[in-house]
Amino acid sequence: MIRVGVIGYGYWGPNIVRNFQQAEGSLVVAICDKCDKSMRRAQQAYPGVRVSSEANDLLTAVDIDAIAVVTPVWTHFELAKRALENGKHVFVEKPFTSTVAQAEELIELAERKKLKIMVDHTFLFTGAVRRIRQLIDNDTLGHLYYYDSTRVNLGLFQHDVNVIWDLAPHDLSIMDHLIKQKPEAVVATGERHLNGVADIAFMTIYYPDNMIGHINVNWLSPVKVRTTLIGGEKKMLLWNDIEADEKIKVYDKGVQFTNGEAVYQQLVSYRTGDMWAPRVEQVEALRAEAAYFIECITQDKKPFNDGQAGLRVVSMLEAADKSLQEKGRVVKL
Amino acid sequence: MIRVGVIGYGYWGPNIVRNFQQAEGSLVVAICDKCDKSMRRAQQAYPGVRVSSEANDLLTAVDIDAIAVVTPVWTHFELAKRALENGKHVFVEKPFTSTVAQAEELIELAERKKLKIMVDHTFLFTGAVRRIRQLIDNDTLGHLYYYDSTRVNLGLFQHDVNVIWDLAPHDLSIMDHLIKQKPEAVVATGERHLNGVADIAFMTIYYPDNMIGHINVNWLSPVKVRTTLIGGEKKMLLWNDIEADEKIKVYDKGVQFTNGEAVYQQLVSYRTGDMWAPRVEQVEALRAEAAYFIECITQDKKPFNDGQAGLRVVSMLEAADKSLQEKGRVVKL
Amino acid sequence: MIRVGVIGYGYWGPNIVRNFQQAEGSLVVAICDKCDKSMRRAQQAYPGVRVSSEANDLLTAVDIDAIAVVTPVWTHFELAKRALENGKHVFVEKPFTSTVAQAEELIELAERKKLKIMVDHTFLFTGAVRRIRQLIDNDTLGHLYYYDSTRVNLGLFQHDVNVIWDLAPHDLSIMDHLIKQKPEAVVATGERHLNGVADIAFMTIYYPDNMIGHINVNWLSPVKVRTTLIGGEKKMLLWNDIEADEKIKVYDKGVQFTNGEAVYQQLVSYRTGDMWAPRVEQVEALRAEAAYFIECITQDKKPFNDGQAGLRVVSMLEAADKSLQEKGRVVKL
Amino acid sequence: MIRVGVIGYGYWGPNIVRNFQQAEGSLVVAICDKCDKSMRRAQQAYPGVRVSSEANDLLTAVDIDAIAVVTPVWTHFELAKRALENGKHVFVEKPFTSTVAQAEELIELAERKKLKIMVDHTFLFTGAVRRIRQLIDNDTLGHLYYYDSTRVNLGLFQHDVNVIWDLAPHDLSIMDHLIKQKPEAVVATGERHLNGVADIAFMTIYYPDNMIGHINVNWLSPVKVRTTLIGGEKKMLLWNDIEADEKIKVYDKGVQFTNGEAVYQQLVSYRTGDMWAPRVEQVEALRAEAAYFIECITQDKKPFNDGQAGLRVVSMLEAADKSLQEKGRVVKL
Repeated sequence: MIRVGVIGYGYWGPNIVRNFQQAEGSLVVAICDKCDKSMRRAQQAYPGVRVSSEANDLLTAVDIDAIAVVTPVWTHFELAKRALENGKHVFVEKPFTSTVAQAEELIELAERKKLKIMVDHTFLFTGAVRRIRQLIDNDTLGHLYYYDSTRVNLGLFQHDVNVIWDLAPHDLSIMDHLIKQKPEAVVATGERHLNGVADIAFMTIYYPDNMIGHINVNWLSPVKVRTTLIGGEKKMLLWNDIEADEKIKVYDKGVQFTNGEAVYQQLVSYRTGDMWAPRVEQVEALRAEAAYFIECITQDKKPFNDGQAGLRVVSMLEAADKSLQEKGRVVKL
Repeated sequence: MIRVGVIGYGYWGPNIVRNFQQAEGSLVVAICDKCDKSMRRAQQAYPGVRVSSEANDLLTAVDIDAIAVVTPVWTHFELAKRALENGKHVFVEKPFTSTVAQAEELIELAERKKLKIMVDHTFLFTGAVRRIRQLIDNDTLGHLYYYDSTRVNLGLFQHDVNVIWDLAPHDLSIMDHLIKQKPEAVVATGERHLNGVADIAFMTIYYPDNMIGHINVNWLSPVKVRTTLIGGEKKMLLWNDIEADEKIKVYDKGVQFTNGEAVYQQLVSYRTGDMWAPRVEQVEALRAEAAYFIECITQDKKPFNDGQAGLRVVSMLEAADKSLQEKGRVVKL
Repeated sequence: MIRVGVIGYGYWGPNIVRNFQQAEGSLVVAICDKCDKSMRRAQQAYPGVRVSSEANDLLTAVDIDAIAVVTPVWTHFELAKRALENGKHVFVEKPFTSTVAQAEELIELAERKKLKIMVDHTFLFTGAVRRIRQLIDNDTLGHLYYYDSTRVNLGLFQHDVNVIWDLAPHDLSIMDHLIKQKPEAVVATGERHLNGVADIAFMTIYYPDNMIGHINVNWLSPVKVRTTLIGGEKKMLLWNDIEADEKIKVYDKGVQFTNGEAVYQQLVSYRTGDMWAPRVEQVEALRAEAAYFIECITQDKKPFNDGQAGLRVVSMLEAADKSLQEKGRVVKL
Repeated sequence: MIRVGVIGYGYWGPNIVRNFQQAEGSLVVAICDKCDKSMRRAQQAYPGVRVSSEANDLLTAVDIDAIAVVTPVWTHFELAKRALENGKHVFVEKPFTSTVAQAEELIELAERKKLKIMVDHTFLFTGAVRRIRQLIDNDTLGHLYYYDSTRVNLGLFQHDVNVIWDLAPHDLSIMDHLIKQKPEAVVATGERHLNGVADIAFMTIYYPDNMIGHINVNWLSPVKVRTTLIGGEKKMLLWNDIEADEKIKVYDKGVQFTNGEAVYQQLVSYRTGDMWAPRVEQVEALRAEAAYFIECITQDKKPFNDGQAGLRVVSMLEAADKSLQEKGRVVKL
């Protein structure tokens, strides 16, 4: 039985607690939050669980095997570091850390201590992403041309991070999971309008072989959009995460070029066939992820969403920030 | 009666001929196309109109007052120049020219000759853009935050220009028409996959006062999207040009920041009110534009979509190309 | 403090318990369900509440003021009757009873005992129905022409009632709430395909002044549809209950007839103006309804969704069944 | 070469003329319309074609092989009869005739004269209906449960016929084409609000084996809907004719019943699999139909949309009118 302590019981914390409580093989033994109201909510929902305002109570508790860090990103490094130092596995909210250096230090520490780090890239456990991964792995889409995601809505404004750090980690972790190549460079543009941090931003990620990624994030959109287009040589895919039933549509569409007699006679032919919406499993992603964390600990497996995965996302975020500060300079990775 | 000669009778030419034929005060007297098949189509549709394969026949004809140039962009400059030199007003397809220098030369020539140049920025004459212009002019939207357009579909691939020169002129001319400020810098990223020119591209345009524009163009999308989000301080707007009936939706939504006791207590409040889809006039844009061209000539008016408007668009396209070649370098305008 | 006993803890019961537990002025003191598993679920969720498999324990308990009957429809009459006989107010799931006679008997009994009956017509408490009621009451729509609802999806099949008794009570209670006139006749058609009861059915309800209602219910639809069209003399309304944000759209559209010189010269003119989506309050309907039940008891108010409202719905269902059995005979109400 | 005379050049007539003009093997030699303006339009568009205001000129012309009747329904019988009597094949607009008796007389006359009758059930020639027919013929859908169509919009009001005669012939001809069984009874309900004929109506058609059809037609809807649900034992289909690209969606969804130990333990299981949108050929239906008419004449083939098909639709319309007059009485066919 893995005994879990959860630090942070704000917006996302209750979901973490519920899922580790329900997962087979794990038990939440303590919850920490600095805010009185959150503590009271936690105590009411889980009368049998210790509730504390002091992270230290959990970080040093002998009856805790793993710590879930569900706090603002600027606190991740310190909390995760102390957890690892105290011999505890860590489950860390995304984005993993505020800097690449922090991520590297945590990874090295965990390796030394033979402890697990899992970064909460929840989307990787959704039925939709799993299905897309299959369609790429079994070469249904063919060689990839582009990944283009739009993730916009009204709010929720964050005070400490800009819209890229808030929304893009979802896309960056999904791209990291789906695309085999290593990204080479990042360009980010954007603007701030209200509270001093960028609230609208656009991020281009260059990959080898002319593969290109693009992310459109915006806290000031009147409508909520969660749409990703993936273009492949063989097929093209539209993922609309807001649709209840037909989240993924695979289009048998494409373009072919053949040369005519002269260069200017290059012939284009378009292929338009059926569309197909594969059934997407309806599971609570976090439930599967919690079970996977427990499994990785008990069976000593390396999670695919480990510290390295978290680091890869943070390195792209860091590059995006650099680029954004210079209005879109190309930043090599 | 303004007698019009139309050079180019391929995809768009027939629409130009039909509208100048129907417009009050104008008459198409000659059509030119190098392709036999196009010539035959033109002759069949307009038995009373002269048809020729030689542009020169039209450019030098004494019974022609105005020339419409509806040919590939690389031919615009030469044809428009000769038309102006021969004392004819010109109506030129978008984009105006291949370079800023060409545009400037044509403008100067037209001024000297006291002739009109109109660039076919058709979208400015649609009910939708006219309605949006009203909503901005009467301050319904308030101070603008961003203009974010997605214009993607499968094909039609162009051989001589990339996807930016093919699709972005629509958005650039609309932005030029709607946004009061002068753009300051451009960043463009993108990739080529098939025929050596970029087929997917993303363009950021920086304006003063933190206003930002973004254009997503793609020839390799399985679905056709024509969606523009415009964020304003007072209201936000969604323009979906594919919708038959509710093209424009105005959202009474917004965000406000107020300071709490301490910096970290900054309070965000969201406003969510009604949505309103104003009726959009259903007119053929090109019909209104043709009438406006005739009106500008006969009443000696300066068109708002004149050579200067065409030049402003070309200068952004030229900057985008420069930026694209360096994977997204910021190019000042 | 109104002490509530809830009979039935299957699909809907937990929502009833939760809302009466949270409502100010009420307290759930006992829950009853015949099924062991449901009893265990109830006990686990509400450790402080008595749980029993015997309805009688609740119906005769001296510390219970009101009984919520959340069981299959064929048991409503018996349970509600015994509750009333024992001096308890009743909150009864829709549809109220299996027959008109049963409804009348309960109403008469409650009047004699000076007790309240409320029928759980939940939809009347949604933001959408409240908004539509306002638009009718303030004459925005004008004189009503028709109410046309489609309520179809895959399953959930009921064993004891047909698709009309399962799905149409929603629409019938909403129509009863929105439409001033008294319905005059019912026609129902439909078919059974799987388990001996109609799984697809169509119901027409005739009102005075040419107002007409229509309900399309279907357990065998591949897609979920919850769409209602309401046509009025002044404006027309589309209510799509599946939309998250723009549930109600009001169209400034209409038709006018004017006579020309001769009968066959009757002129039709169409009016097409703006569309408007008023903000719909996002509330949990059942929460408001629970509070209203408590308010009606403590302040001795007559609920608008009282036994009479329940009876009116049941009388239409009874008429629909009669009509359906004769493949669509007109049944006067 | 089949020489065609077209009577009626109002809304639909120009499409008929254009398609018979373009079809291989046919030539339009004369057009008739009583209205001066229509005659002028016809003459302008087809300078080489005779134009007349007298139907008789066409009906008796020796150089005409076939007459297309594109006039209001109440004139169909007289015009088609005289055309047949004069030895001409007829192509008649839908609905075929105003009464069953008229349809039978024309069929008998055509048989005697060995002439062809084709009724313009255009929809049968669309890519969508052809595709659905294939899906039924190759048993993809399995045994059919229901056909449920909604065909509503604002206007166009007809003066001489009600909304059923205006809009339902589309659905009735499609159902006649797709469903193997012979309909057994009709129930129609509806109301009139403006010009004395029903402007909203609902029609149920009973078939053997519990198959049921339903048609919802309405001239007073603020939105245009063209949606048909077809439920089959194996698969379910949604046809949205307004969608540009994914008109037909086939759902791998279904319900199965198995008996448990006792009757009330009947178990329901739902199957939810992939959705699939087969490519639908984009053709002008009328073009294919015109070619088919010519082919049926020249190769002496019996069209599937012959007088008998027209008669079957008229008999359902006639039954619907009878039912409607008695507010929904079941009318046996």
